[in-house]
Amino acid sequence: MPLFYHPNLLQSPNVLPEEESRHAVRTLRLKSSDAIAITDGKGSRIDAMIVEANPEGCTYTITRKVKIETPSYSIHLAIAPTKQRDRMEWMVEKIVELGVHRISFFQCRNSERLKINANRLEKIAISAMKQSQRSWLPEIETNLNFDQLLQTDEEQKFIAFVDSSNPYHLKDEAKPDTSYLMLIGPEGDFTQNELAKALDSGFKKVSLGPYRLRTETAGLAACSIFNLINQ
Amino acid sequence: MPLFYHPNLLQSPNVLPEEESRHAVRTLRLKSSDAIAITDGKGSRIDAMIVEANPEGCTYTITRKVKIETPSYSIHLAIAPTKQRDRMEWMVEKIVELGVHRISFFQCRNSERLKINANRLEKIAISAMKQSQRSWLPEIETNLNFDQLLQTDEEQKFIAFVDSSNPYHLKDEAKPDTSYLMLIGPEGDFTQNELAKALDSGFKKVSLGPYRLRTETAGLAACSIFNLINQ
Repeated sequence: MPLFYHPNLLQSPNVLPEEESRHAVRTLRLKSSDAIAITDGKGSRIDAMIVEANPEGCTYTITRKVKIETPSYSIHLAIAPTKQRDRMEWMVEKIVELGVHRISFFQCRNSERLKINANRLEKIAISAMKQSQRSWLPEIETNLNFDQLLQTDEEQKFIAFVDSSNPYHLKDEAKPDTSYLMLIGPEGDFTQNELAKALDSGFKKVSLGPYRLRTETAGLAACSIFNLINQ
Repeated sequence: MPLFYHPNLLQSPNVLPEEESRHAVRTLRLKSSDAIAITDGKGSRIDAMIVEANPEGCTYTITRKVKIETPSYSIHLAIAPTKQRDRMEWMVEKIVELGVHRISFFQCRNSERLKINANRLEKIAISAMKQSQRSWLPEIETNLNFDQLLQTDEEQKFIAFVDSSNPYHLKDEAKPDTSYLMLIGPEGDFTQNELAKALDSGFKKVSLGPYRLRTETAGLAACSIFNLINQ
């Protein structure tokens, strides 16, 4: 059953937003009486039946409210953007499929001054959420600075940083059923000053494995580990 | 120290292949006396020093043979190609970074008849191997059929297939320090006949998690799990 996104599912009358209506009627060629599912990306979800297959505003009637459990854990990935935009876009698609709850792009000393297209990333995230039949759309922030990230209130905070005093693999340090923040630095890495600030703020240095990963692969690997620990 | 690829490292005189020479001299602007590392992608690796920084054939002298441990496990990912070529290319890059030892693209009943560009995939794999400082280049096969895959001799063989009789997550079924084959089907999934043949040949049905993953994300997730189990 195809899943659609309707951010105001609970407040609005029974009509899909225009873009979703077009997708349902023009692309998927759905008709009156076809069954669909709809989520608001905030944990609410219904099963529905199409009434009028109008590509400008497809109406439906609710057949069932689906109970979605609130996840026992949350993943906040904060990452310094790469120079190549498509690498970040790929990563967002993949981590939404694998599971992520908040994505922050931040600037630090050695990061690229990339202008992130928040609108485009949101579309990619919505599409990946629908594809993987999820009911939570991650929040995406595009312009934080490093110091703002140190103030967030997750239970377990990690910084990907490997040096001689750091033999700890994320998979052995992350505990299940809690909230995580994972900081992934730029290609030029965090500065010693940034690292010291993070450690002062309760972050723990972790490794993501014995090999050097590209920034976006590190983001993927971290989300994969957090999800596996909780599955 | 930048890593270069030289498939005949042990047999040939001390000169990098042309493409690698160009990369060293033109792109990275390395000079005489600069330190480099070289691997043959088959587990041999040396540290070296550039003698003549010639972009058509960069010569070097060996400073050290590096001992590379043979891995205690091997990952063979067999996957039905997606319609969009860039999804497969991106997956190859990422799984080489995460760790994979053999990649097979195969045709089955519901797979897309995509012509795979083996040459291009090999270049992507070489680049990802160098990037992640690995010394093993995975073998890439591009045109197997489903029945050929049933004959390979890995210790643990898995097929990604979820149905009502299948609550087993790959992370709980894969054992460390062995050889794995993971079969990932096309978007249209394996047929019941293909599934039955695989089960007859000793494959085990496994899930990769509670959400629906795209083909290339499933490949990535499987490689991530095998590597984590062995780290």
